[in-house]
This record gives sequence, C-alpha cells and structure tokens, in this order.
Amino acid sequence: MLKDIREAFRHLFRSILVVFPMAVVTGSLVALFLFLLDKATLFRWQNKWIIYLLPLIGILITQIYQVIGKGSEAGNNLIIDEINEESTKGVPLRMTPLIILTTVLTHLFGGSAGREGTAVQIGGSLAAFSNKIFKFKLIEKRLLVMAGVAAGFSAVFGTPIAATVFALEILFVGRIRFDALLTCLFASIVSNSVCLLYGITHTHYSIASNPLISIHQIDLLFLLKVILAGIAFGIASQIFVTFSELLKNSTKKYIQKKWLIPVIGGGMVLFISFLLNTDDYLGLSVISEKANGISIVSAFKANGVDELSWFWKLILTAITLSMGFKGGEVTPLFFIGAALGNTLGMFLGCPVDLFAGLGFISVFAAATNTPLASMLLGVELFGGEFLPFFAISCIIAYYFSGSKGIYHSQKNEASKWPKI
Amino acid sequence: MLKDIREAFRHLFRSILVVFPMAVVTGSLVALFLFLLDKATLFRWQNKWIIYLLPLIGILITQIYQVIGKGSEAGNNLIIDEINEESTKGVPLRMTPLIILTTVLTHLFGGSAGREGTAVQIGGSLAAFSNKIFKFKLIEKRLLVMAGVAAGFSAVFGTPIAATVFALEILFVGRIRFDALLTCLFASIVSNSVCLLYGITHTHYSIASNPLISIHQIDLLFLLKVILAGIAFGIASQIFVTFSELLKNSTKKYIQKKWLIPVIGGGMVLFISFLLNTDDYLGLSVISEKANGISIVSAFKANGVDELSWFWKLILTAITLSMGFKGGEVTPLFFIGAALGNTLGMFLGCPVDLFAGLGFISVFAAATNTPLASMLLGVELFGGEFLPFFAISCIIAYYFSGSKGIYHSQKNEASKWPKI
Repeated sequence: MLKDIREAFRHLFRSILVVFPMAVVTGSLVALFLFLLDKATLFRWQNKWIIYLLPLIGILITQIYQVIGKGSEAGNNLIIDEINEESTKGVPLRMTPLIILTTVLTHLFGGSAGREGTAVQIGGSLAAFSNKIFKFKLIEKRLLVMAGVAAGFSAVFGTPIAATVFALEILFVGRIRFDALLTCLFASIVSNSVCLLYGITHTHYSIASNPLISIHQIDLLFLLKVILAGIAFGIASQIFVTFSELLKNSTKKYIQKKWLIPVIGGGMVLFISFLLNTDDYLGLSVISEKANGISIVSAFKANGVDELSWFWKLILTAITLSMGFKGGEVTPLFFIGAALGNTLGMFLGCPVDLFAGLGFISVFAAATNTPLASMLLGVELFGGEFLPFFAISCIIAYYFSGSKGIYHSQKNEASKWPKI
Repeated sequence: MLKDIREAFRHLFRSILVVFPMAVVTGSLVALFLFLLDKATLFRWQNKWIIYLLPLIGILITQIYQVIGKGSEAGNNLIIDEINEESTKGVPLRMTPLIILTTVLTHLFGGSAGREGTAVQIGGSLAAFSNKIFKFKLIEKRLLVMAGVAAGFSAVFGTPIAATVFALEILFVGRIRFDALLTCLFASIVSNSVCLLYGITHTHYSIASNPLISIHQIDLLFLLKVILAGIAFGIASQIFVTFSELLKNSTKKYIQKKWLIPVIGGGMVLFISFLLNTDDYLGLSVISEKANGISIVSAFKANGVDELSWFWKLILTAITLSMGFKGGEVTPLFFIGAALGNTLGMFLGCPVDLFAGLGFISVFAAATNTPLASMLLGVELFGGEFLPFFAISCIIAYYFSGSKGIYHSQKNEASKWPKI
C-alpha cells in the first residue's frame, strides 16, 4: 500500500513539473491567438472589401506551408501520429507560429473556419518541442504531447474538463486509456487559468432551465425527439466529413496547379456568400456584428437562424478547410449543430435553446468521435441539469456518424459496436 | 455513408428490443428492493433489540448461500467475469432473489452495508438469464449483461448517465471501450424511469453554490486543498480495500468453522457500536432517525459528523461485508467519503458541503476505479457547476487508490500510469 502511494506521489510531482511550463506557454499563446482573432474579425467587419482578397490570401497560405512548412501542414493529424508514435518525422516547433499566422489570415479575409485546431497545434507542437529540448525522462513523451492537446483545447474554449477527456478520446475511435488522465487534467487547468489571467473571456451561452423537462419525469415523446435529433446530428457530421474528403480528393486530382486550389476555393466561398447575400457564415460566426445577424449565439433563440443555415455553414467550412485555408473545424461544427438544433427544435416543437445546445455538442461529438468529452463540454458550457439529454444526443450522434471522423489519424481499431 | 447509417439504425433497434424487457424488470425489482430496504430500516429503528440477532442472521445468510447459492455468492465479481467471458459457470438467475433477501436481512438486523451491489446483481443476473432463455442473436451477450449492470446502478441511485459510464469502467482498470455505450445508456434510462414510476424517490443532497469558488477565478491555495483532499480520499479507499481483504483472508485461514465467521463478525459490529454508543453506523446510514444523528446527509453540514466517523463506518462495513453479510459497498463508500470530506473541509477551512460532496464521489471513484462515472455522478447528484473540482478530486483519488479495488475480477492489464 505504501509503495503504491509513494509511486502515485512520484507520478503526481513529475506530471506537474513537466507539464507546468508547457501549459503556461500554451495558455499564453492561445490568449495571444484569441486576441488576434478578435482583432481580425473586428477589422473584417469594419472593412468589408477585404474579403475580396480571400483567393489571393489562399495562395499566400499555401506558399507559406510549401516553402517553410516542414510538413506541419498535416496539423492535428501530425499531432495524433506523434502521440500514437506513428510518425518518425516529429512535430516541428514552427507549427506554432505558422498556424497562428495562417489562421488569423484565414479569418481576417473571411474564410469560414474555427480555432480549436490552431490551439491544439500550439499545445501539441510546444509539447513535442519540450520533449525534444529537455529530453524529459520523468514521464512518457506521449503523455506530454497529449497534455499539450488538452492545454490548447482547454484554453481556447475555457472548458478544462472536456479538454482533458478530449485529449484521451481523439486518439482512438471507440476506446480510451486513462494513463494520461492526470497530466492532461493539470495541463488543462493551468493553461485555462493562464489564458484567463490575460483577461480573455469566453462567449456565454445559456439554456433556460425548463422545469417541465426533466429526466425524472418520463416523457417518452420528448425522449424520442432527442433521439431523432441525435440521429440528425450524426448524419450532419457524416455529410461534413464526406463532403470535405470528396472536395480534398477531387481538387487534388483535377486541379494540376496547387496554387489554383485556394484561389478557386476562396472564389467559391465569396460566390456562395454573394448568392446568399450575407457574410454571416464567414469567419468564426460565434457572434454577429448585426443585431439580427445569424451566429452561434443567435441559434439559441427562436427564429434565430434560417432553416438551411447549418447547411450553408457546412458547405462554406468544408470548402475553406479543404481548399488550402487554415483554422479549426470545431467552432464551425458548433455552428452547424446549433443551427440544425434550432431548426429541429422549431420543427419538433421543443425548446429551441436546449436543442441548439444539443446540436452544438453532438455534431462535434460525432465528427471527432468524442462522446464523453462532448457531454462534459455541455455541462461546462450550459450547466449540468441537462446532462441526461446531452448524453443521449451525443451518444446517438456518435453512433450515427459512420466510421470516419475529421481526424484521419485517429485510429479505428475497434468498431463502434460489435459486429455479429 | 448510407451503409453506415443503415447499420447504426439496425444496432439502435436491436439494442432497444433486447434491452427493454430486461431494463423494465430490473427497474421494477430494484424498486421493490428499495421499498423493502426502507421498511427494514424503519423496523430496525423502531425495534432496536433486533440488532442483537445479527450474529445469528449471519449464520442463516451463510447457510442460504452454501445450500442453494449455486456459486452466486461471488456476486459482482461473477457478473464482471461473465462480461469478460472469464467464467464458464454462468450467472444463475437465483442470484436475484437471494441477494435481495440476504441484503434486506443484513440491513434489517443492523449490518453496515450498501445497496448498489444488490442492484447490480439483480440487473446482471436478469440479463444473463435473458441471454440464456431467449438466445438473442441480435446483440453480443456481453453487451446485455453490461446493460444489466447499468440498469441496476441507474435505478438504485437515480443517476442514469453515471450508471452508463460505470458499467463500462468497472470491467478494466485504466481503460474503457465504447461498444456497449448505447445499450447501457438505454438500459439506464429505462430502468431509472420504471423505478421512478413506482414512486421511488432518491435522497437529495445539496451543495450551496458558493460564488467565491469558481475554476474561473484562479485560487491556487484552494486548488491545492482539493488536491490534498483527493489524495486523502484515495488513501481512505486503499485502507478500506486492504483491510477488507486482510479480514477476509485471515478469517478464512484461522476460523475453521464457516458458520462461526458471521457470528464473530456480527458480534464485532455489535461490540464496536456498543463502544461508540451509537447505532448511526449500522445499516445504510443515508439518513438518521435522530435529529442530530450522523448520516450521509448530516455530513453535508458543518459539525455534522465526528472526526473519526469515516473511520468507524469503514471498519464496520469492512467487517460486515468480509464476514458473511450481504449488500453493496458503494453507499458505505459514499458515507466514508462524505464524512472524511466533512472533516477535511472543517480542518482546511473549506466549504464543508462541497468537500463532503467531493469525498462522496471520490472514495467511490478510487475504490471502484471509475473516475469518469464518478464525476458524472457528482454532476447528477450535486449539479454541474462544481465539475472541475469533482474531476480533480476523483482523478487524484483514482491515482492514489493503488492497484486493487473492491472488484477483484476487474482486469488490471494497464497500470494507472506508464512506468518508465
């Protein structure tokens, strides 16, 4: 018994020692990144003409990665490979400045993208760098890179517990190991705290507590509607993944000149926005500059989005991220889910804010194959009283999202259910 | 893509079809069991003399299992073996009536025990029975037994989401697979709903939201206190596991006559209670009949327990369950944790209700090696706003609880952290 306790203390101190510096730097850089992102979005709102340069900026971004990328274009997948020890190339430190720069450029000029990929790459590449420099023998290298992923995710969304479980869940489809639980938890909490110290605030979403809806009063019809919504969220995720992949493969195959891909992509984004007569789907879309604009926040209100808002955001994001621009997928996935949830809530006669919340976490759960992290994300963002509905929706969406997710390096050894 | 969706629908319908009847029966029997348990506790309060029969009842319980037990005495471990396909004997259906009867007897005559073990055995043996009778080829047998575990846990505590993850986590130390996630979720929700339909209510615990304590205001000292408490909870769990094992092995070795073991055990429980001059530690101890009695509920109030309450409950429960009586370990673990949390909270100058809540879930997390289920349990019982503290305390306690837990059949393939 004493030996077990001594060893636990040793692991605890080693984890703190190794993780602390990486988490502090990650939290700081994510704070810088979020600051720049805010400024870029504000600048774009005030200078609408800037979006016409999107195709040109695409060339710049592609060139940057081709000339000095050193393989870091593979992004999150490179991080996952590093953790799973599938990669011999390693994660270059330059991934951090490059992804910050190119993501901010993407947002400044109106690409439809997210930010968590950037944060995860910041954390992951910093962790890989500390492994290389300090040659830590205190904990397994793999654990530190996982902690880097958790640190990045935690700081960018302000959700340390979801981030901890996320870092464990993205490695494999359908199973997790707990050996990095403690290191990821420390990294998440430290990085989030540091980011908050810089004065970064996170958007607040709220679901009104509806006393009529409780898992303790059994409303079968309501449960059925939640299940239906979960299925829809899973299928939406599949559409996103399939369309992104199709776009990536076909452009690679049919467009010979690499630099042309982002030009066409940027052009398509502009053209679709022009047809829809709105720039609400460009950039992060967490909030809108207009009082009645469409955004993630507006998706929590009745009639806050159009019926096809989820679809347009899906299309624009797939084009942006598959055709040379940079940024995360997760915030757009939040948008897609919240907007689809809003539409389903209106259609099914259910509380729109709750269904927006369910979509927000469930499309993410489905596309990243992280059902547990997603329900914890729901608790951290919207409160614990809806946990049963979060769980049902996330788990159903996870089962309905097919065998592929947005991270190609995520290992798919186990299937989602036993085949018999 | 369509093939994936079709297969997901098939798995969904199969799961519902196979799980539904088992979950309904489990929910009903757990409701009956909880009803009987209430009556037994009430009867004991009104007829104090009854506890003097405890040693004799121990003989009866031991005899029942020896004569008609058919191996079902192994209880939860037999269920885990059945799921992991380690057992060829199978789980007999008689496990259900036997465990209900012997647990109610244990509580009626004042043994210190819990109830989740009983509920898990009801669900598990019913599931194994449906496998045997209906020869389902719709889902893997293993999945249905896991769903039975989830159904039992869910109904007995009214916490369907924690129950879902619990059923996945107890099979292995340090890793989980998601293939049974959906079946367990359905079973949990159905069984809990059915149990509530019978009018069963669950004790309500509450932690006052203290606006001063938030993960978003970084109070390093407070975090450190939570970590310290987590370590203490982990060590308390190790003491319980080690002491129980020691007791079980030494009585088996030194007491030749089997029937003498429960007589001595019952006598020890009575003697210690007599010395302490209280029967507060007998039975479930969720609530006390006396206004100022010691119970789990009183542990959430300042000065609600004595400084060594956690220790006495630990000793009495270990004796009761290691020396021939029946019932679960989990409710006593909740008591041990809540009481220790109360004492630590008073000592460290922290909110007593929060620390009681942390102990409640963390000693359980540590002893069963289920850190994720435990933090979800915290959300379901106490609300989501304290999730970060729940996570820190449960994860630390899990790391500090050593390599053994209360379930010997839980496989220990992976260690809690990588050894380097």
